[in-house]
Amino acid sequence: MDEAEEFLRLFHEENPQAGPVEPRLSAVRAEIALRGTYLHTPDELGFGARVAWRNSARCIGRLYWRSLTVRDLRHVRDAADIAAECVEHLRLATNAGRVRPVMTVFAPDAPEQPGPCIWNEQLVRYAGYRDAFGNVVGDPRYAGLTDAVTELGWRPPTQRSPFDLLPLAVETAHEGVRLFPVPRDVVMEVPLEHPDLPWFTDLSLRWHAVPAISNMRLSIGGVSYPAAPFNGWYMGTEIGARNLADADRYDMLPEIGERLGLDTSSEATLWRDRALVEINRAVLHSYASAGVTITDHHTESERFLTHIQKEEKAGRQCPADWSWIVPPMSGSLTPVFHRYYETQHLRPEFVLDPDAAQ
Amino acid sequence: MDEAEEFLRLFHEENPQAGPVEPRLSAVRAEIALRGTYLHTPDELGFGARVAWRNSARCIGRLYWRSLTVRDLRHVRDAADIAAECVEHLRLATNAGRVRPVMTVFAPDAPEQPGPCIWNEQLVRYAGYRDAFGNVVGDPRYAGLTDAVTELGWRPPTQRSPFDLLPLAVETAHEGVRLFPVPRDVVMEVPLEHPDLPWFTDLSLRWHAVPAISNMRLSIGGVSYPAAPFNGWYMGTEIGARNLADADRYDMLPEIGERLGLDTSSEATLWRDRALVEINRAVLHSYASAGVTITDHHTESERFLTHIQKEEKAGRQCPADWSWIVPPMSGSLTPVFHRYYETQHLRPEFVLDPDAAQ
Ligand code: HEM
Ligand code: HEM
Repeated sequence: MDEAEEFLRLFHEENPQAGPVEPRLSAVRAEIALRGTYLHTPDELGFGARVAWRNSARCIGRLYWRSLTVRDLRHVRDAADIAAECVEHLRLATNAGRVRPVMTVFAPDAPEQPGPCIWNEQLVRYAGYRDAFGNVVGDPRYAGLTDAVTELGWRPPTQRSPFDLLPLAVETAHEGVRLFPVPRDVVMEVPLEHPDLPWFTDLSLRWHAVPAISNMRLSIGGVSYPAAPFNGWYMGTEIGARNLADADRYDMLPEIGERLGLDTSSEATLWRDRALVEINRAVLHSYASAGVTITDHHTESERFLTHIQKEEKAGRQCPADWSWIVPPMSGSLTPVFHRYYETQHLRPEFVLDPDAAQ
Repeated sequence: MDEAEEFLRLFHEENPQAGPVEPRLSAVRAEIALRGTYLHTPDELGFGARVAWRNSARCIGRLYWRSLTVRDLRHVRDAADIAAECVEHLRLATNAGRVRPVMTVFAPDAPEQPGPCIWNEQLVRYAGYRDAFGNVVGDPRYAGLTDAVTELGWRPPTQRSPFDLLPLAVETAHEGVRLFPVPRDVVMEVPLEHPDLPWFTDLSLRWHAVPAISNMRLSIGGVSYPAAPFNGWYMGTEIGARNLADADRYDMLPEIGERLGLDTSSEATLWRDRALVEINRAVLHSYASAGVTITDHHTESERFLTHIQKEEKAGRQCPADWSWIVPPMSGSLTPVFHRYYETQHLRPEFVLDPDAAQ
């Protein structure tokens, strides 16, 4: 009840039109006494979801936290319906390339009845196929999930590629875990090309348009929503500096360095740094050309500082985690590098359960 | 006495050849009772200085902490002598380009008698001349120090340049603050050229060989050495990604972007990131060509992980500050990015006094 009270006071404080908090507090107190939990009003749910975003210390994209579209699907409990609504989420969020921040909230945990959960880290993830030598085709980060869903009966395409869509693995208390393919046609993807380097398309790289995290629990006023996928749009470095560049992901820098004709015999030639710039240019250029919303780390850093200022003006502290906010490339070129942040922990929030599968 | 005891126990534990700690403890206890402080043996001083380096959570270069040369100049108290020994420090450290880690320890604080201190952040720093419009020629970071020493009677060269050496400002209790020029001939400098871009030399950029921090207090076993300049060699990014690139330092990226013919009309072309790579290549290339020791951020990150492993093997924790250890460019390309660190605070240590002048 402590967390419920804290949340309801916050809701009524920031939403004066909702009237005084006391009547609502006594209602919720009674409901908890009776059922062991309580139901959020749609307004409370929407507010809680937006504030959970506002409180995400690792997120640089919070300037637009008020703009989140919240889909209230708390009545949806069966795996097949959840999967279908995740597909609908992707459709709404993709919006033909003009990506919209959306969150879909499925049934919460209740006493004796855990809510559904989604195993996939994001709604769209690419399979990683491990061969006998430990090499991986596709995304090595999801080799474990690929193994797990294969075990559960998933059949990869006969023609395997580095960008095969993994099925959604949805777990409910009454059905166990079930798999559902994500239809290709709802997954907008962008083939990567470089503004100046024609050979870049020979790499046959691509990435999907919408980053929709699906394995974080949304926690609002003591109520826990284990399945509440949400998406923003991409910041280029997530794709170009991490997904495609990390040595334990697609690890593309050696090949790009080679094709650029760089001297890769010594780290001191900074060939990696140079290749990193080019792949990130390709990402930003390709998304823009394809009409898919994306942001670069310079612009987004500026926006984030604007956000902090706005929050301060509103009398709120803005918690931020330096090591996540500072972009993974050209850190000191961005203004977010040159300062410290509040680090206190605020609720509502998104929580990554330690046992969340990848 | 608590800190003294903690330090002496550490010294005897890591240096068994020094014998049992108890006799030394009672001697120091007696000395403190009598004088309010105590004298480190030369071995204790050397060990304390090296361990202060080992404990520097922000330093990526700690693999070679045992190799520090410690100059015991605790008897030196007069400003002129201190300045002369700083010059000698530079000579020894520069070593014709094969840079050696050196620390020079001057008189400690004693009850009623504060030790000397050096105002300059480093022994070699370039003046920053502010004009009436607020523009700065030289290093804007030291515009304040430049004003201060000018106030104290320093005369800049008649022909001002962006790389004029600031005088040392040495403060002692009995003399106040006094200024001493740093002779040009002990300051090895490297003119910057680029391996592929001939026009780079037209920028007339240069930097000095030896980074020698001179405004941090060395604190060993309760004894405080306010003047104890120390140096390592440069990691290229300190010069190329910070000193010459930061918007509030030499801010060279716009000009380099222009000369590279990059499209600077939008951040999304990543022209800043590209220019950053080229200036850093120039730094590493120029130092190497000039025979001056330097390291790149990839190599140094690997070394640092080796250092952590060695420390763990020795049964010690290695405190590290993620936001300082991860290089200011291409963060996620370096292995130090992809992990967390111990953050506890260990003694002996270097301390930056809040009122240290720049
Ligand atoms: C609108 C555009 C958005 C942008 C550009 C953006 C950007 C980012 C970036 C760059 C990260 C770091 C990702 C990483 O390094 O793995 C991040 C993390 C995060 N963002 Fe956002 N974001 C956006 C929207 C959202 C939305 C709509 C939500 C929730 C409603 C959200 C919640 C989070 C959370 C919880 C994390 C931390 C994830 C984790 O711990 O793994 N973001 N965001
Ligand atoms: C031998 C080569 C060395 C390398 C490559 C190295 C590298 C670095 C780097 C890159 C930084 C961060 C600087 C910044 O971002 O401003 C740093 C900080 C630091 N280093 Fe080292 N270092 C070396 C030697 C030393 C030595 C000999 C000492 C002391 C005996 C030392 C003590 C420190 C301390 C105290 C800091 C933090 C400075 C501050 O708080 O401003 N380092 N080092």
